[in-house]
This record gives sequence, C-alpha cells and structure tokens, in this order.
Amino acid sequence: MTADLDDRLVRARAAAAAAGLDALLITPGAGLRYLTGYDAKPLERLTCLVLPADGTASLVVPGLEEPAAVASGAGKLALDILPWDETDDAVALAAALLPDARRVGLDDQMWAEKALRFRAAMPGVQQVAAGAVLAELRMRKSAAEVEALREAGAAIDRVHARVGEWLRAGRTEAEVGRDIAAAILAEGHVTADFVIVASGPNSASPHHETSGRVIAAGDPVVVDIGGTTEAGYCSDSTRTYAVGDPGAEYRAAYDALQAAQAAAVAHVRPGVTAESVDAAARSVLTEAGLGEAFIHRTGHGIGMETHEEPYIVAGNTLALEPGMAFSVEPGFYLAGRYGARIEDIVVATADGVEALNRRPRDLVILDT
Amino acid sequence: MTADLDDRLVRARAAAAAAGLDALLITPGAGLRYLTGYDAKPLERLTCLVLPADGTASLVVPGLEEPAAVASGAGKLALDILPWDETDDAVALAAALLPDARRVGLDDQMWAEKALRFRAAMPGVQQVAAGAVLAELRMRKSAAEVEALREAGAAIDRVHARVGEWLRAGRTEAEVGRDIAAAILAEGHVTADFVIVASGPNSASPHHETSGRVIAAGDPVVVDIGGTTEAGYCSDSTRTYAVGDPGAEYRAAYDALQAAQAAAVAHVRPGVTAESVDAAARSVLTEAGLGEAFIHRTGHGIGMETHEEPYIVAGNTLALEPGMAFSVEPGFYLAGRYGARIEDIVVATADGVEALNRRPRDLVILDT
Repeated sequence: MTADLDDRLVRARAAAAAAGLDALLITPGAGLRYLTGYDAKPLERLTCLVLPADGTASLVVPGLEEPAAVASGAGKLALDILPWDETDDAVALAAALLPDARRVGLDDQMWAEKALRFRAAMPGVQQVAAGAVLAELRMRKSAAEVEALREAGAAIDRVHARVGEWLRAGRTEAEVGRDIAAAILAEGHVTADFVIVASGPNSASPHHETSGRVIAAGDPVVVDIGGTTEAGYCSDSTRTYAVGDPGAEYRAAYDALQAAQAAAVAHVRPGVTAESVDAAARSVLTEAGLGEAFIHRTGHGIGMETHEEPYIVAGNTLALEPGMAFSVEPGFYLAGRYGARIEDIVVATADGVEALNRRPRDLVILDT
Repeated sequence: MTADLDDRLVRARAAAAAAGLDALLITPGAGLRYLTGYDAKPLERLTCLVLPADGTASLVVPGLEEPAAVASGAGKLALDILPWDETDDAVALAAALLPDARRVGLDDQMWAEKALRFRAAMPGVQQVAAGAVLAELRMRKSAAEVEALREAGAAIDRVHARVGEWLRAGRTEAEVGRDIAAAILAEGHVTADFVIVASGPNSASPHHETSGRVIAAGDPVVVDIGGTTEAGYCSDSTRTYAVGDPGAEYRAAYDALQAAQAAAVAHVRPGVTAESVDAAARSVLTEAGLGEAFIHRTGHGIGMETHEEPYIVAGNTLALEPGMAFSVEPGFYLAGRYGARIEDIVVATADGVEALNRRPRDLVILDT
C-alpha cells in the first residue's frame, strides 16, 4: 500500500506540473487520504500537504495531531511532517515552503477562510482549484481500488437484502431509517453516510432523507443508502420498494425506469462519453413520457467520496476508460404524487462494464 | 423559532454592513443552519444563501433539493428560494443577484473550488472570510441556545456515567469506542461526532481516536466524546479513567491537572479575556512542572459546531460576555508514557460561570 501511495504522490506531482501548477495545497478530506493515507478531519487548525511539482513534499500539521499523522500512512512516505504550535502562523509556515511558486492548486474542499489566508500569505500567486488535477488520478481506479469498491457494493447489497425486515406500513420513515443505518454499520461499513427512506409523495423528492411520515399501504418507498468501508471506499445503491401494490400506473412507469437504467448500464464501455450514458437513460424515459420527470443527472463518480468525477451528465464529453467507477441512477419524480429511482455503481472494464451492485432491479413489492 | 431565525437574518445583514460587506455568501454547514434552519450537506452542487446587507435574500438550491429546502426552516423565512437545473451555471446565477457588490463575505467553510468560481464570476469583487462576522452573532448564545447546550451536556454526561460498563482490561480501544458510540446515540444525540479512547501511551496523543490496542491493567484512559442533538447543538466532554491504579506519579500529575481545570473554570466571568482563562490553567500546570506537557490551547467555543469562536488561547484578548459557551480542557501529555485531560463545556453567565457538564472531575479508577 505504501508503494501505491508513493506512486500517487509521484503521479500527483506530474499531473500538477502538466497543469502548469508549481504546487498543490491539499487539506483534510478524500484528496489528502488518497495521496497520503492520512484520514484527518477538516478543522479550524491547518493541516496541509504541500506538494511541489518539484521539491520536497511536506505535511504541515498541528503539533497535537503529529502522532496521528506519523501513525497514518503519511509517516511512511517520502515527505517531511512539520508540526506547528498553537500560537504559530501555520499558513505562513506552509507558504514559506513555496518561495518561488507562481501558480498553486488548492484542494477543491479547502475551507475558503484558509484559501483566503493563503492568498494573503502568498501575494501575487495565482490560486486554481486542484480538483481537476487530482480527478485525473482519482477517477481512474486501480485494480485494488475496484476491489475495494466491489467490497463496498457487496456490503450495501447485504443491507438492501434485509430491508424487508424493517419496511412495512405503520412504521415511520425515521424508524425504518434507524434500522437501516444500524445495518449499514453491521454489514461492513465504518460509517453510515446517508439513509434516504422516501415514502409515498416523499418519493417525489430525490434527496428527501427521512421524516416522521407513517408509511401506508400502497406506498412506493425509495431507499437510497450508502456508507464508507474501513478501507475508505464508499457504497451507494438505491432500490425502490412498495408496501403492497402501488397500482398499475406506477408499475408501468417503474417498468420504463427499469428499462432506462438497464439501457444506460448496457451503454457503458471504454470510449463512450459520460454524457452519452446520461442520454441512453434519458431517451428511454422520454419515449415513455417521463423525460420531464427525470430531473437530475444520471450519475456521479464514486471512490473515496460518494460524489466525485466523472459526473454522468449532459455536457460532460469525457470518454470513459477502464477503471472509471460511477453510479447509474435514473429516476422519475412527480411532485405531490410519487417517484422512483434505481441505482447501481458500475465500473468500466477493458471491454464493457461490471455492475458492483447485484440485487434484482425489479420493483420490490413487500407485504403490508 | 422562525421569529428567532428572522432575527438572525436581520442581525447578520447588520453585522455584514458594519463589517463593510455588501453581502454574505453562505454555503451548507453550521452557518447556513444557524441563519436559516436548513441543515444541508456540503456537496459539489451549489447551495448558497445570498444575503445582501440591503436587499432581497435568496437561497440558491439545486432543483432536486428544493423540496427539502422548502420543508426546512428556510421555507418560512423572508427569502426567495431559487432552484437551478443540472445544466445551469449556479455560481453565475448567484453572482447575478449581486450586480453592485464590491466586497463580499464568504462562508469560512465554503469549498475553495466554489470560492474560486465566485471570484471568476464576480471580477474585481473583494472576497473576505465571513466567519468573524457570523461569529459575532453565533458566539453570543441566546437563552434558548444555552438550554440546547445544557441538554447536550446532560446527554454526554449520561454516556460518561456508563463508561464503566464497557471500559476494562483485555478489551481494545476500538471495542470500547463502538460501545460508547452506540451510547452517544442512545442517550440523546442524532450523530456520534467523535469518540476518543486513548489508553496507556496513546493517552499522550491529544487527538488519538481509537485503535486495536488492548487496554491493560494500570492504564490511564482518556475518553473524549461528543455528538450533535436533534436541535443541532454539540456536546463535548472528556474524563480520564484508569483501569486499576495508574501509580502515584500519575495520580499526583492528575491532581495538578484537576486543580488547573478548576482554576480556569473559576476564572471565567464576564469581562475577563479568553487568553486569561488559558493562562489560569497553564500557570497551575507550570507550577506543577507540567507546563511543557500542556501542548494545546485550553479550549474552544461550541454551539452548532464542536469548534467555533471563542477560542481560549494565548493571544485571544476577546473579553468574555454572558452567553459565550466554550470548553475548558487542559491536559498533560508525556510522549511514550501517558497523558490526561479533563474537559467541561461552560457558559459565561451575568455574574460568573455555569458548567454544562456535571460529572465528577476526579480520576475515575475502575476495576480491572
């Protein structure tokens, strides 16, 4: 793993240089964990990887975090760990490591107050978002990363396999959500990152989480859940359930959605564009008269973050490559009435696609 | 509550104007929840409160989040909710709401990639961190907020009261941590935000979380835990335990720490500076020969974030006012040997201080 991490630092330096950046400034989050193995929390105290395109890499850390930084993968890498004291100016300390920089890439998720302090500490230095540079590395998963995503996918599949234990009429979305959250942890995740249990009319709100609404007979229920594994990789899968028969109209719309999701997955292979995968799903729903009801993009990349590059959306002409992993999650949403979504994580392979979620995609009709 | 929220928007506008800002741009996080009641996740899609010092307030949200935004407190406030579609330029949409702005305050935790996009979309507009402006409001808790923090304090006290059920020799820090995390949820929090179980030599690392280390007889164990309540307020309390007798030298050092923590709490009253509270704890530890071992500040403010203003640290000359809530958590850390910390959340009152954590502060010696 350390070798893999060293390789990432080397590739990140090269990507930065290729982008015309003198250095990357990476604060806690998925980018820092990807590059160093150090899973630090973003806090008001500055922790920052200072990675010059050419020169010594340094990890600036609050003194009280030094033991944790050393104990993390970062302690084994070719970088200097530089602790600072409570009353030091940590931004000035980090900026002083780059006396000749003219253009630096900031971690996409660096807090603005830190970006503004770096701007003041490095006058005349152009700041650009480093996300695109790291995305070039992160969106091309290694075999080990695909295996980690496969394990995350299997873990969330085990949770979906158990939803019938908890989802029934008379219970609230929140009650069902608590049971699911516990199962996300029990089935192989270290955190339950999100739990959507959207029943009846709430199913028409794509990002509804849970509520005190009591689930009723005949309700469709969208269950969109995910967590993060010990290895730091994310799961994200949606299945739509119904507590009793939701009615012929709903079942017909669901059939079109299932066909759209299958068409989009089947379309995935190296060389096709991200936006063409979105179009493959959208065209099927449009033909079924549900185009207007499909109000979001078809998917998002996934890895050490639930949402990362590549985004499967109109306008993204990126050509897919083997190792790119992302969600394929079309849906339809009719405000005040109902909605549905089917989501699998898939990875582009050398000659096609592998679905990392394997549960049946049919509407799951449970007893009331 | 809505009235309270309206008042916060009014006060935030005034504070922005007083700081010479034409508007505040507030993205998901504690600031947005404090001002609007909308508890949104920070994501790649832009959600942003555009709050001019003078003029209509707007909440720019992804179309698929609009139902959640409307359902939140934000739906009842004097602001326009403006949804955007997947292929819109949301930053341009938000920037267009401020055609005459010359100086804007950015949410301290706005992602840098969004801050950089706002800079490009608003050429010539000066960006400054809005944190200090919001801190002026947020660090002065209302009676309702103090009550919410009191409830959070009581909730985490209930967890500390149960630590003896799980902490014993032969178990790993991680096993004990999992039991504590479950109890944080069971005792009145919606999230378990952090669980530090630092045993033996790990107790010398202030931010050690948990590990596979097996707790041994005679180990001191620092347990620093906290969560967030349904109301959105945070708890944070540390007690130091020992599994059997840690020895006379340790007990003597702990006695000095307990005296230092008590002295710092007793020092708190309106008008004294934040740094003088730090000095009150530090001087006691210094006299005991432990000054060098106290390697972090004495405390941090707390409210809708675990760490917020005011920071109790050398150099902070802020005069405390009634309603300011913060941690008082001195510690000592001897690398490779052991450490200890005692932490209570306290709030400055009209004439003194109220401790929101009430568990005994003595070293808790458990059976092995």
